[in-house]
Amino acid sequence: MKVSDIGEQGLLKVIQQFCPSDVIGDDAAVLITKPEQSLVVTTDVLVDNVHFSEITTSPEDVGWRAVAANLSDLAAMGASPLGITVGLALPGDIEVDWVERLYCGMTECLQQYNDNASIVGGDLVRAPVITISITAFGQAHPQNIIRRNTARVGDAIIVTGVHGASRAGLELLLHPEIAENINEADKQTLIKAHQRPQPRLDILPIRKDINFSQISGMDSSDGLADAVLQICRASNVGAVLEWQKIPVPKVFQNWLTPIQTLEYVLYGGEDFELVLCLPYVEAEILVQEFGKNAAIIGTITSNLNVVVHDDKKEIPDQVLTLDRGFQHFNI
Amino acid sequence: MKVSDIGEQGLLKVIQQFCPSDVIGDDAAVLITKPEQSLVVTTDVLVDNVHFSEITTSPEDVGWRAVAANLSDLAAMGASPLGITVGLALPGDIEVDWVERLYCGMTECLQQYNDNASIVGGDLVRAPVITISITAFGQAHPQNIIRRNTARVGDAIIVTGVHGASRAGLELLLHPEIAENINEADKQTLIKAHQRPQPRLDILPIRKDINFSQISGMDSSDGLADAVLQICRASNVGAVLEWQKIPVPKVFQNWLTPIQTLEYVLYGGEDFELVLCLPYVEAEILVQEFGKNAAIIGTITSNLNVVVHDDKKEIPDQVLTLDRGFQHFNI
Repeated sequence: MKVSDIGEQGLLKVIQQFCPSDVIGDDAAVLITKPEQSLVVTTDVLVDNVHFSEITTSPEDVGWRAVAANLSDLAAMGASPLGITVGLALPGDIEVDWVERLYCGMTECLQQYNDNASIVGGDLVRAPVITISITAFGQAHPQNIIRRNTARVGDAIIVTGVHGASRAGLELLLHPEIAENINEADKQTLIKAHQRPQPRLDILPIRKDINFSQISGMDSSDGLADAVLQICRASNVGAVLEWQKIPVPKVFQNWLTPIQTLEYVLYGGEDFELVLCLPYVEAEILVQEFGKNAAIIGTITSNLNVVVHDDKKEIPDQVLTLDRGFQHFNI
Repeated sequence: MKVSDIGEQGLLKVIQQFCPSDVIGDDAAVLITKPEQSLVVTTDVLVDNVHFSEITTSPEDVGWRAVAANLSDLAAMGASPLGITVGLALPGDIEVDWVERLYCGMTECLQQYNDNASIVGGDLVRAPVITISITAFGQAHPQNIIRRNTARVGDAIIVTGVHGASRAGLELLLHPEIAENINEADKQTLIKAHQRPQPRLDILPIRKDINFSQISGMDSSDGLADAVLQICRASNVGAVLEWQKIPVPKVFQNWLTPIQTLEYVLYGGEDFELVLCLPYVEAEILVQEFGKNAAIIGTITSNLNVVVHDDKKEIPDQVLTLDRGFQHFNI
């Protein structure tokens, strides 16, 4: 059954199963924010064959990833999710089943974090190419908001988990033949990292328990290099990253060359980890709370460059630039 | 100069001119809602050659109309605008000038209502077709929110202005030859109604001065027939509309046949007026406040049909159905 067979009203009925009944049917959705909390808002647009493809991503995974990208932006701001709106543009010959599975994936991702965060509205239009625009709303106490432009010289730079896994998973989906030298469990872990990335909303309860003086940062959705560069540019500082300290999937060691590892880890993107800058004493506490894949990977410097240094000389020392990351219009 | 010539970072710099400087550069935007106000959220997606086309719409007008559609949804909920996010998907060979003019139009539309309502964030991605996804945020006191599902039998149905003007303007742009029998000023008024529709946010100050017990309603963006039908369906009521009481542009009288007028007025869409239901006494006050193009056009009934009745028999009496309105996947 195609979307064009049941029309807009028919498709709306299918989609409304995934929305709480009290938010359906008006021109706009109504949300209640807690008093004294600020509203935090983020938008991501995903386009078929640019950000996802049938070859590597099921409709459920497309939905999950679209929501995860937005929730990751909320996590990076220190905000807890309230809900999302979904603007869906699609051709009439798409299967209704595809749309239903898309919303299943979105709902699955939303529900793991907060029972109250749900799909509160959206728009449904005809278009020659599938385009999914999600806007997510969250709330945060104004003093808990994490910004990019407040990193200070001497801050430790921490990551909340491994980098490069999502990119490796994508490569395994696109070129299954490269999996020859790795075992099935490792392969599935990497593929899952690509298809079902986990936004790091677990920073919120940690911060509730421990009083951190100041955290700056962002998520690493466009790559670890991009995140560090953006923080440094916004804060007018630089950074030194210690290559050996950056957590990478163990399987990379015997599978990838150092240069491939560098490519995946620094420029792969879509790992949806957080890159945070804060004083060393507090950074050490936070890394412990985040668990074994979190680490202090470098230091903020007054020199404006972002430099990667390798004690073991497996990779050449280098200065990072924004040009190498995922640039939407240069490819 | 094409978008692909300056890349994402270059295009971001162009767009950031249109955003307040304090909202730039983080993963998400932070907004402050007034205490005791609810957050009202709405999303609209516009696709090139589906919702707009180069032939009829300048980039400034595309921007204006996209924002107007969202602000109209806020007006229909009784909410005042706080800001918007813009998800823009576009091919690399679009002129940078086109994008800049798009944002000019969006900003122009936003600025007429509220100095503080601005573009607070968004996303910029590559896609084979231009797609503009706008999410607008507003705020309203919970008791002032206008919903679709609270129309009551005996309520007067009012419109805040003429219907059919936007559709007539579109026809004049697509088929300039049909303008032969009307004067230039009328022609320009109709074209402007299509290119620069005015969201009826003027309901807000009116309601502040007068204490209305209850208003239900929505905007007429998908046509007057659709609005009345949606309200009736949501409220489990019907309606009788008096054809002669529905305000239409004067120029229609000697220019269009009664059946063409019916088509434009009931099904044309995009007039962005409000269709409101409330007790007769209060409806009369509200119509006076809205000015000469507002009118009481009918009554809510317990019979579930929506009937259009013409005293003068220019058009046949008829029962309206949702099928005739703009259905995104049936065309």
